[in-house]
Amino acid sequence: MTSQFFNPMAQINDNFLKLKAGYLFPEIARRVKSYQDEHPDAKIIRLGIGDVVKSLTPTIAHAFHEGVDEMTSDSSFRGYGPEQGYAFLRELIAKHDFNSRGANISADEIFISDGSKCDSGNIQEIFGLNNVIAVSDPVYPVYVDTNVMAGRTGEANQQGQYEGLVYMPCCAENNFTPELPQSHVDIIYLCSPNNPTGTVMTRDQLKAWVEYAKKESAIILFDAAYEAFISEADKPHSIYEIEGARDVAIEFRSFSKSAGFTGVRCAFTVVPKTLMAKSETGAEVSVHALWNRRHCTKFNGVCYPVQKATAAIYSEAGQSEVRGLIKGYMENAALVRDRFLARGLKVYGGVNAPYIWVQAPNGMGSWDLFDKLLHEAQVVGTPGAGFGAGGEGYFRISAFAHRENVLEALDRIEKVF
Amino acid sequence: MTSQFFNPMAQINDNFLKLKAGYLFPEIARRVKSYQDEHPDAKIIRLGIGDVVKSLTPTIAHAFHEGVDEMTSDSSFRGYGPEQGYAFLRELIAKHDFNSRGANISADEIFISDGSKCDSGNIQEIFGLNNVIAVSDPVYPVYVDTNVMAGRTGEANQQGQYEGLVYMPCCAENNFTPELPQSHVDIIYLCSPNNPTGTVMTRDQLKAWVEYAKKESAIILFDAAYEAFISEADKPHSIYEIEGARDVAIEFRSFSKSAGFTGVRCAFTVVPKTLMAKSETGAEVSVHALWNRRHCTKFNGVCYPVQKATAAIYSEAGQSEVRGLIKGYMENAALVRDRFLARGLKVYGGVNAPYIWVQAPNGMGSWDLFDKLLHEAQVVGTPGAGFGAGGEGYFRISAFAHRENVLEALDRIEKVF
Repeated sequence: MTSQFFNPMAQINDNFLKLKAGYLFPEIARRVKSYQDEHPDAKIIRLGIGDVVKSLTPTIAHAFHEGVDEMTSDSSFRGYGPEQGYAFLRELIAKHDFNSRGANISADEIFISDGSKCDSGNIQEIFGLNNVIAVSDPVYPVYVDTNVMAGRTGEANQQGQYEGLVYMPCCAENNFTPELPQSHVDIIYLCSPNNPTGTVMTRDQLKAWVEYAKKESAIILFDAAYEAFISEADKPHSIYEIEGARDVAIEFRSFSKSAGFTGVRCAFTVVPKTLMAKSETGAEVSVHALWNRRHCTKFNGVCYPVQKATAAIYSEAGQSEVRGLIKGYMENAALVRDRFLARGLKVYGGVNAPYIWVQAPNGMGSWDLFDKLLHEAQVVGTPGAGFGAGGEGYFRISAFAHRENVLEALDRIEKVF
Repeated sequence: MTSQFFNPMAQINDNFLKLKAGYLFPEIARRVKSYQDEHPDAKIIRLGIGDVVKSLTPTIAHAFHEGVDEMTSDSSFRGYGPEQGYAFLRELIAKHDFNSRGANISADEIFISDGSKCDSGNIQEIFGLNNVIAVSDPVYPVYVDTNVMAGRTGEANQQGQYEGLVYMPCCAENNFTPELPQSHVDIIYLCSPNNPTGTVMTRDQLKAWVEYAKKESAIILFDAAYEAFISEADKPHSIYEIEGARDVAIEFRSFSKSAGFTGVRCAFTVVPKTLMAKSETGAEVSVHALWNRRHCTKFNGVCYPVQKATAAIYSEAGQSEVRGLIKGYMENAALVRDRFLARGLKVYGGVNAPYIWVQAPNGMGSWDLFDKLLHEAQVVGTPGAGFGAGGEGYFRISAFAHRENVLEALDRIEKVF
């Protein structure tokens, strides 16, 4: 049957073929599993993927149970909720996370979702394919990969950088903070506190970005998933603390790391109603309306008991418990930071973020250090190169671990070097 | 500042502007709210959106609580789960929903998600923009709208049909079952039991579709979200009951309607590893691998306690309880069907699906009937025209309601006519 060669056939989205290797964390999981299979007795300590280890706190768990109980009686049962999330939760968020910090964000500008990875991955759908996209390097891979899949890039070069994206180098010289691009860009992904480098942007730096976006009619996609870990009082938690940011920025937040929700799934995105972008005809279009349409068409809202549990985070008891979780992780971060500094390593982050970004010693490559630590110390970190060419030669250590494991890992690492 | 007119500006995805009005259900909600605001005392009965009303059953709720309890102790806490869902759940699904019916589907071909709307909306991302897409008319709007957003269509005509899509008319003459297209199509959305018409495809009809897909190297996106409501023993529950379907079909399933999970959120998608599509170069590419990459990059797995609750559906007690829920709803469907038939109305569905599809009397339009029933009987249904041009003149009644409300609604409707 030669005719089959001329037969039309369902076609894939070829952009997927441009993606390099697996998504970072599955690749790490693969290497760890392979090592564990060969060494079934090895006690591997995971400081890699940045997953929390401390259980849900009592107040949050209590509300979670209450939510489930409500679902077990016809009179209090809740079916489909609003796609945007329940008002009771959105109002708490607006008040506690924004209004209390002088940021003018209202409940109906907030969209509850099941994760920041989803939101920061999906947000590009509402923008045109011709926008010029800027990302920092190193970068959280989701920003890049989702734009590749959508067709906003060409192929990747040897360093894994995709044609058509504007990379903003973050390195020791600029303290791992992206600088304003020399040429015009339309959409800028910023992440502060930063994943992976653990650095945080100052008020003045954010101000400069808001001004840039105003001047260039650009939009900032501001990922603040780690804002709860900011310890220095003068650092902004939200981009909306900067005047005018409402008109140029979308912000992503998550309960994954702050409240231990990585297995529970709740996050939110803020799209101010004053944020506009242009259509092909040059007309200004509400970005909020587009995201709302996307959310209503492709999403069905977050599990009700989860939203109820999330609301409990904002109670007095919930706040106090969550602060306790964060304090524990940040003490881990300080331990790692101090021990590494004492060994003469170059260390960033760990003060306003749960990540320590460390330069691999002796000019080692990131994946080489990953394999060395896995094989010789049974410690899993994240190779900086997994976050882009700019991360080569660096390594990310996560503070999300039990204290005894952090101490044990530090002892083991010190023996290797 | 005239220069602002020449200033580049972030651009929206213009395809969103092609979408007609709001998504159907928000539009219904708007009209109902507007009526309720004007008539605060009116007791509105909702048989519209198709949302369940019966609470979670004891076995499922118990497992849900257990899942939350596990999350409250460090030793049993679970953070990020596999993006594809926990194996314990995928294995239950493979065994009970597929293997037990002679369908050869394995656990690692199943992807757990937070909703079928999400999955059936997102699936098009992994396919190229040049595929010819076929949908039935009337149709579940998500299939169409997500292809519009992605740029696979031109503008809509007066009837709301988009240029570039192949519409398969479903009407009384073909018992609301789509017929094989006359020309080649690459991707076909099929929904059986059907939303909105309540009809179900026979084994022979599905067989013809699988053969068509094989011959044309097309892919079938089979939405079986309502399979649990099939009451006739000879009707297939899964497309994989048809030989060869593994090579041509993706199937969507949901716990929303069967187990009352609309507010809990759990569903799954089956992408067999033998399903291939071609790249631009003509190479065959694994569709499973693409969906896995999409899932890992843009999704973080379903809430652990929810997956635990979902697994309980497959226990003996869970199965029996869920059958009870379904029985109650299907008794509603029979009531509506019988009363409408007795009034001489033309009625479809309601036997293997929780939806009754009724022809509006006296040549009325769908939205006119919607407004009439809302204003005169305070009953909310779904206008058939909301599902596409082919639904004009029809009306969907959902069986998801408490019995007393169904009876009251039927009494009120009979008074109106």
